[in-house]
Amino acid sequence: VKTYLDCVPCIIKQAVRAPRRFTDDPVVLERILRKTMLAITEFDLSRTPPEMGCVLNHIMNRELGNPDPYLEEKRRFNMLASELLPGLRKEVKSAADPFETAVRLAVAANYIDFGAPAGRTDGLLAALFTEALSQPIKGGGASAIKRLRELAGEADSILYLADNAGEIVIDRLVIEQLPRGKVTVAVREGPAINDALFEDASVAGLDEVAEVVTSGVDLPGTPLNACPPAFVERFRSARLIISKGQGNFETLSDEPGTIFFLLVVKCPTVAQHLSCEVGDFVVAKNASN
Amino acid sequence: VKTYLDCVPCIIKQAVRAPRRFTDDPVVLERILRKTMLAITEFDLSRTPPEMGCVLNHIMNRELGNPDPYLEEKRRFNMLASELLPGLRKEVKSAADPFETAVRLAVAANYIDFGAPAGRTDGLLAALFTEALSQPIKGGGASAIKRLRELAGEADSILYLADNAGEIVIDRLVIEQLPRGKVTVAVREGPAINDALFEDASVAGLDEVAEVVTSGVDLPGTPLNACPPAFVERFRSARLIISKGQGNFETLSDEPGTIFFLLVVKCPTVAQHLSCEVGDFVVAKNASN
Repeated sequence: VKTYLDCVPCIIKQAVRAPRRFTDDPVVLERILRKTMLAITEFDLSRTPPEMGCVLNHIMNRELGNPDPYLEEKRRFNMLASELLPGLRKEVKSAADPFETAVRLAVAANYIDFGAPAGRTDGLLAALFTEALSQPIKGGGASAIKRLRELAGEADSILYLADNAGEIVIDRLVIEQLPRGKVTVAVREGPAINDALFEDASVAGLDEVAEVVTSGVDLPGTPLNACPPAFVERFRSARLIISKGQGNFETLSDEPGTIFFLLVVKCPTVAQHLSCEVGDFVVAKNASN
Repeated sequence: VKTYLDCVPCIIKQAVRAPRRFTDDPVVLERILRKTMLAITEFDLSRTPPEMGCVLNHIMNRELGNPDPYLEEKRRFNMLASELLPGLRKEVKSAADPFETAVRLAVAANYIDFGAPAGRTDGLLAALFTEALSQPIKGGGASAIKRLRELAGEADSILYLADNAGEIVIDRLVIEQLPRGKVTVAVREGPAINDALFEDASVAGLDEVAEVVTSGVDLPGTPLNACPPAFVERFRSARLIISKGQGNFETLSDEPGTIFFLLVVKCPTVAQHLSCEVGDFVVAKNASN
């Protein structure tokens, strides 16, 4: 997904709103806005929206003098999700279809998002997960989940691209359903909004059930042309890729390979791409293969 | 009203959407957006939102190679309003309170707006005017209308600041209620979105019932520090000023003098200033006197 003209006012709105979480100094707020606008004025729109988001985050973090302003929120959501995990794991185990239930919960967990216009940032996680068990799945729907299960059973290497902190705790439920010893989880290399880093993967205990690597970039998505060769090689050689969240979708929607996108749709542009609505739960396989 | 940080993403959104009315050339659309962002990056936020809007309009009109892109829409709304005028004049004449009825209709007519986030641009004018007769008036409400009538009866000079084309046709109903020979109507000097110009005042026949002048600027508001001395002198010497629309409110809310603001509220920032909601019909006297 390239960056549309409509993405520009959206990022400028975020340039006004996001920093208010961290400061009420009008001088700092105005400087972040002006510097972001100036930088976006030169942004190449053939690049992806997460790369534009990254421009804002670098400016904001520098002006705030804080390399990881969302750290506290990330920890809070890791904790909230960890508290819910045992109950949700029971839910999965007792379900008629444990795989589908795990996938549904992992999609719902993608609601935890501070960077998207329609991300949910409150603590109403428990209600969200209950909703997720019955809510219709868009994109490929139930048949995409079925196909994902089949391909996961056959694949000798699975790359799981995590998205946000908190969410990554719930991702463990899906990873526990995948064949042991074949899964690599990728997190961001450095702070990118509230996206999961190595620390968050550890809190989620993913190092116990999978190999954990980083994408090599501090971007809220995975634009392969910006990632180091070692990561790109890992991506290209994976037989199955499970991609969480809108940022990964926006950067990988045109890549070849067998990619399943699991996300909550958070903006009208992506909704249009996926022929669905903002707020929809999506499991969609990419076109190739 | 100064320009708030939140006004910036709003104007950038307009920089994406407004030009689409007039072209679908992606190169022109992108150039208008980038040039507007670059210009707004340097905009002094102590100036008013209509002055920021003017930056976009100058850039858009230049890039479109069209000094008055809204001309056709302005003429269309003048015509629509003119068709409704005889019926509305009957409504005023047969009303228990003709003055209040005329004011209500003139406030409602301010819905015709192409420059504001919540302006109404469809042709549902007739329904709008019916609504206006019973809808609660916010700001000073009915007592502000009563006070306006009293002051209008006493004033030896009344300055009526028009806002949009189409709307200005309905303004005539209020002007017909004011003492003859004492009213001056001010329109914009040059194209500013769909704001009324001299041509529109003529279509409305206002030159038959009042003196018509221009503000001296092509801005969707009346920032006195940008207006020529002759207009400022006229403004300062008027005993009563009736100001139509949000742009005039935003540029004149802090001026001394006896000013009544008649408008439909079109954005959350102005709504907050007036302690009301977006979409509310407002008649409000300024603080001084």
